[in-house]
Amino acid sequence: MRNAVQFRRCVLLDSCHKGSESIMMAKKFDIVVVGAGIIGLSSAYHLQKSNPDKKILIIDRLPKAAQANSGRSAAMFRNTFTSADNLLLSDTSINFYLNVQHELGIDLGIQLVGYLWLIGENQIDRVGPHIRRMVEHGIVVKQYSTRELRDLLPELMTQFEQDEEFRTLKLMNIGGALFGQKCGSLDPDLLADFYLKEFLNSGGHVSFNTNVEKLIIEPDEKLGMGDEPFVWQEAKIVGVQVSGEVEGEIRADTVVLATGAWANELLEPRGIDGHIKVKKRQLFKIDVKENTALSSLLFNKSFNNEGILPFVILPKCGIYVKPVREGRSFWIGCEDEINREFINIPDARMETYQAEKKYYEFNIHPVLSSYLPQFKDIKPSNMWAGLYGINTVDFLPYVFTECGAIVVCGDSGSGIIKADALGRIVSAVYKDGEHAIATLYPNIPYEATKLSYKHRDVEREEWVI
Amino acid sequence: MRNAVQFRRCVLLDSCHKGSESIMMAKKFDIVVVGAGIIGLSSAYHLQKSNPDKKILIIDRLPKAAQANSGRSAAMFRNTFTSADNLLLSDTSINFYLNVQHELGIDLGIQLVGYLWLIGENQIDRVGPHIRRMVEHGIVVKQYSTRELRDLLPELMTQFEQDEEFRTLKLMNIGGALFGQKCGSLDPDLLADFYLKEFLNSGGHVSFNTNVEKLIIEPDEKLGMGDEPFVWQEAKIVGVQVSGEVEGEIRADTVVLATGAWANELLEPRGIDGHIKVKKRQLFKIDVKENTALSSLLFNKSFNNEGILPFVILPKCGIYVKPVREGRSFWIGCEDEINREFINIPDARMETYQAEKKYYEFNIHPVLSSYLPQFKDIKPSNMWAGLYGINTVDFLPYVFTECGAIVVCGDSGSGIIKADALGRIVSAVYKDGEHAIATLYPNIPYEATKLSYKHRDVEREEWVI
Repeated sequence: MRNAVQFRRCVLLDSCHKGSESIMMAKKFDIVVVGAGIIGLSSAYHLQKSNPDKKILIIDRLPKAAQANSGRSAAMFRNTFTSADNLLLSDTSINFYLNVQHELGIDLGIQLVGYLWLIGENQIDRVGPHIRRMVEHGIVVKQYSTRELRDLLPELMTQFEQDEEFRTLKLMNIGGALFGQKCGSLDPDLLADFYLKEFLNSGGHVSFNTNVEKLIIEPDEKLGMGDEPFVWQEAKIVGVQVSGEVEGEIRADTVVLATGAWANELLEPRGIDGHIKVKKRQLFKIDVKENTALSSLLFNKSFNNEGILPFVILPKCGIYVKPVREGRSFWIGCEDEINREFINIPDARMETYQAEKKYYEFNIHPVLSSYLPQFKDIKPSNMWAGLYGINTVDFLPYVFTECGAIVVCGDSGSGIIKADALGRIVSAVYKDGEHAIATLYPNIPYEATKLSYKHRDVEREEWVI
Repeated sequence: MRNAVQFRRCVLLDSCHKGSESIMMAKKFDIVVVGAGIIGLSSAYHLQKSNPDKKILIIDRLPKAAQANSGRSAAMFRNTFTSADNLLLSDTSINFYLNVQHELGIDLGIQLVGYLWLIGENQIDRVGPHIRRMVEHGIVVKQYSTRELRDLLPELMTQFEQDEEFRTLKLMNIGGALFGQKCGSLDPDLLADFYLKEFLNSGGHVSFNTNVEKLIIEPDEKLGMGDEPFVWQEAKIVGVQVSGEVEGEIRADTVVLATGAWANELLEPRGIDGHIKVKKRQLFKIDVKENTALSSLLFNKSFNNEGILPFVILPKCGIYVKPVREGRSFWIGCEDEINREFINIPDARMETYQAEKKYYEFNIHPVLSSYLPQFKDIKPSNMWAGLYGINTVDFLPYVFTECGAIVVCGDSGSGIIKADALGRIVSAVYKDGEHAIATLYPNIPYEATKLSYKHRDVEREEWVI
């Protein structure tokens, strides 16, 4: 795990002492948001902001916010997408984060390092239309020729000898690069803190160390016959059954499920599809010592005002290099598509998912050190794993309603990137239903129903790591 | 189970005796089709027909064909769909089946009883556009007014007193009906036998009682380093690991996965999404005694030339009534949407899935006996359960390629209805890849890529039971 888990108890349910009548009082809310990952937090924040009179509760099984996959991710953001929907969701979220940091003066740890997508010679034709699409959409990108790249990033191998290693690893000579400017990194803990603090200051409630065991589903008119709801009754999700810090039933007029990689866990037993599958993803930390080749690579000044290398994506296997300025390190990851099992319902204990030293050694390192030989004799000092919840069909998130609940999931590795927009959409759906027009930051309308599964109408994303 | 399972050993692998060299010989095929359900059989049949020189093997873990969900289904077919894609897939398949029965003279047990969709008064506006769409597509449908319906089907309650039962069950008065003419039932065993026999006569091979444990995935160029394929290698599915009647590896140039409700079982461990979820569905058999009200209902002569009631779908909960002429019975089912759990990977032993007497009693019977009071004091004489593999997004099937394998799944309860078209599409994809133009019966082109997930381009189905 990236940070040692701190068992910080946040604001718990008001007066929730067993045996007193106040338990029952405290256990009825207008809205319960399940999941204090970045999307749950954004949803709760926007819901509370738009509905100041409503009593809203966030529940999470971990001891603090954003400690599962939000906290284990590479925490990068980008607006370089081919899908017009993805562009809107990401670009407006990034604008909101920039506004929080620069106008409200609340540090989110944003560093606009940029994304540098290295493109193989033989990929140029394939990616051309995608890049044109981004340019048409007004995304700020620069294209670099191999020659320019050699000047900007002399450490990069762009041309290989056609030797056995080249053939075995199926390397590609570099044919150019795409640089996304409004892309970078942020600190997920700071972003989580921002949303949570604002939510709590607006009167929101949170209950950590509280596990949702199941969704409570009831007919609109109970007959007391057992096994209700029957198929001919109107079924509604009326709350959640919890254990841990708080025990028993918590009832709510509306339940919002923002459970990320665990979307299927609560939904499937109720006959609702979460529409996602999950894969383990790993990150490997490489320390950078002073006055080394890696240090020169990290403190490259050619691309951005942050004085460090951009986030670099190699043309092969989606292997990427994240520069970490303050930590003087790189984090290395890989897309790891085929032959990495899909998980339908992940284990709740994130410790189950271990990074594998051998994975770095045999899968990542050969390719990484071919393109960036500075990594040649270097081993990771740390590693961790997280879970990647994917909508495997179009790579865009889902927001839909079922039995009165609102489900948001399937962000496909871009939870942080799109959290603000998704929170606004959830809030709009709460107010006006699945056909709501949400207002993305600062004032951009978006039809929520496009992200539903019943009336899905999104452009599939083609620019995926 | 509908029929007692007969342990009939079909044609097994040639000379597959352990310890002799012929094992290895027999264990290499051009194509291995996993799954002898109706879609696997149709795929194998069309593949063998189009590729007479190729050595093709069907594998199934059960002792004979179509014994899992093909055999447990209601075995009804219809072309009444709103999606133009669904119409093509079903209509051309039905035409093929009709041709086999009427032109080739091979009995498939087809009875064109028709589908009678009863429509609630308050549903008329909602379904109007769907019906217009069917008419525009040239689907032969008749619309009946409530008055006509009373003449044709006097046993049906069309108008209820607004009493407590009416309100509790949320019944609707009948506002009319839609009758689909080119719809009916067939015998899945006869259809399975047709495909299998033709396949075997054309030189095909089959191995029953053989369970596929896993897909074998290998890099195109093996390095012998263990844990291959690495991410930088080209991974290919090169065969299957089996146990049971045959043990060990069976290798093939192309593996076709037609594993129906079990799509995720073999795919997910390899990091491939089957894109489906599964629900248990139940059927309840009601015996019809001579000279009873139920007997008059069954032998209704007003709708078709078969001299029996059509397949009737009630306006509430997708409860349906299948007439069985030879068995003098009705089979009753229900769509059972919310609060019936989704299963990601079902147990292989179908006996795990039991029908529930109480389900009939509390969920189906109250509604059924309100619309058709002849069922009032009647209890089921038999019941069984099957599995329904659904694409929960658009309700259409998937055909896609991954790592050299061809996957067909997600038929969403219409495996029999679309088996012939899907077999032809699989065969076209084998020949020309995912972008193939398949030829549906008798001569209708269909772009296979529309059913892929990468370039999916289908109309979502709105007319679902």
